[in-house]
Amino acid sequence: MSHFADRIADAVRRHRTCLCVGIDPRWESLPVELRARHDATELDGIAAAIEEFSLRVLELIAPHCGIIKPQSAFFEACGSAGMLAQDRLMQRARAMGFVTILDAKRGDIASTATAYADAAFSVWNADALTVNPYLGRDAVEPFILAARRVQGGLFVLVRTSNAGAGLFQDLVCGDRKLHEIVADEVRSWAKENAGACGYGDVGAVVGATHPAELRGLRERMPEVWFLVPGYGAQGGSANDVRAALRNDGLGAIVNSSRGITFPFQPDDPNWASAIVAATKRATAELGIND
Amino acid sequence: MSHFADRIADAVRRHRTCLCVGIDPRWESLPVELRARHDATELDGIAAAIEEFSLRVLELIAPHCGIIKPQSAFFEACGSAGMLAQDRLMQRARAMGFVTILDAKRGDIASTATAYADAAFSVWNADALTVNPYLGRDAVEPFILAARRVQGGLFVLVRTSNAGAGLFQDLVCGDRKLHEIVADEVRSWAKENAGACGYGDVGAVVGATHPAELRGLRERMPEVWFLVPGYGAQGGSANDVRAALRNDGLGAIVNSSRGITFPFQPDDPNWASAIVAATKRATAELGIND
Repeated sequence: MSHFADRIADAVRRHRTCLCVGIDPRWESLPVELRARHDATELDGIAAAIEEFSLRVLELIAPHCGIIKPQSAFFEACGSAGMLAQDRLMQRARAMGFVTILDAKRGDIASTATAYADAAFSVWNADALTVNPYLGRDAVEPFILAARRVQGGLFVLVRTSNAGAGLFQDLVCGDRKLHEIVADEVRSWAKENAGACGYGDVGAVVGATHPAELRGLRERMPEVWFLVPGYGAQGGSANDVRAALRNDGLGAIVNSSRGITFPFQPDDPNWASAIVAATKRATAELGIND
Repeated sequence: MSHFADRIADAVRRHRTCLCVGIDPRWESLPVELRARHDATELDGIAAAIEEFSLRVLELIAPHCGIIKPQSAFFEACGSAGMLAQDRLMQRARAMGFVTILDAKRGDIASTATAYADAAFSVWNADALTVNPYLGRDAVEPFILAARRVQGGLFVLVRTSNAGAGLFQDLVCGDRKLHEIVADEVRSWAKENAGACGYGDVGAVVGATHPAELRGLRERMPEVWFLVPGYGAQGGSANDVRAALRNDGLGAIVNSSRGITFPFQPDDPNWASAIVAATKRATAELGIND
């Protein structure tokens, strides 16, 4: 297993795109013909349906993109059966060679943080986990230690893509905004352990909805991989997100969830082709030069 | 089902204590005789052991305390089998009349936040959930809406009990510290929906390790139930945490996890009596007058 940052760089270069496909399965959005095979009156049935759909998505996107971001909330919403579905999805994705970022936004302290990190890296077999920085450096460190034991990575929330993200994240504390202070911490963590590509194993979640901010944060954290949500269905354009890239075409992976996995109406029999077409369109829009 | 704040007040008054028992089960700490019945080489075996132990804890503490706080991380660390154990624990606790606070520190935006909230309140049947405020008001609102649909509650992280909590939480932004700004938001959410006891359904997590801060935050959020971690094994004394109470003896529930559930060496055959003794000691130390 190579350094996490290098695995991200390899996946981006191999497919010549910075696209990351978000897997956010919801029963209501699934194809009608797939839903018909499952029992929506039981959580087990819903979990089986989202598992079947998610595994099919992996097959459809595999020729075009090497990085996925399953959203743990949608699996947890199906209870323990949903977590089993998440487990199988993560195993399959790893076997297929995807870099997997488990989007669970965990955050806790001491041995509790270690338990979450062990779950992410040892139980769910994630390559990386998203974490929330509010509890401070000593709360993030158990996640960093656990990630490094398996050559894994983290993406720390710096500036999120929701409309109200600024309420706390943009507060001015001295000469910096809160999210800039978090960014400076993230950079220091990333610099502790850089891969051959020059990036560290601690990345940053930076929303696509504010291109000027994106550019500022790019300059502020040159050695940090960005995970950029908010592209596509959430409103950020391909031009907007280019601000997150360094001149080498690396430095950011851009997530699209609904835009890739649900570009169809549930009763569309050609839903699989629609997913492939949406993937190809997004990989091209988010293409990088060698 | 009555208002969440009133259910907390009833549980505190019924047992004349503000103790909340944290359920943080770890294989290494379990009694040897209980471990001997399970297979530690499989996650399923570990999950079965922590379930058996946790259910036994419920029986032992039930005569003395009405509020529990299971820590989701330790169940998730056993994979989907662990989540099934969490499910059964939560069901049993509710059937026994405990108020259950699922400590999962969730935080996300929009429909993802709703998925986490639905998981907590509909799948795991929690009475309340802990949430992280870093993403802002619009990210917390889906949790509030979901809680209110089932007369449930939230505890928002304001000031945590770890040594490094101040790195971001104590940053000075204008005339207030970050955690004070968060506290003011929490108060406004709590005031939207107060119960008969005068407290709202949105509470605050406030660590016990800084009594002066605790007193200041008590004055800042008079209508807010506090969930106070850091008592006992983490270092806060009973005197320290009294600063979180209002004059009516209400206003705070004080969590103890290891101090109650693991007051024994694993090879102690009298571990169950040790749990009962530790519970009685803590309920008395944290006793309230009518």
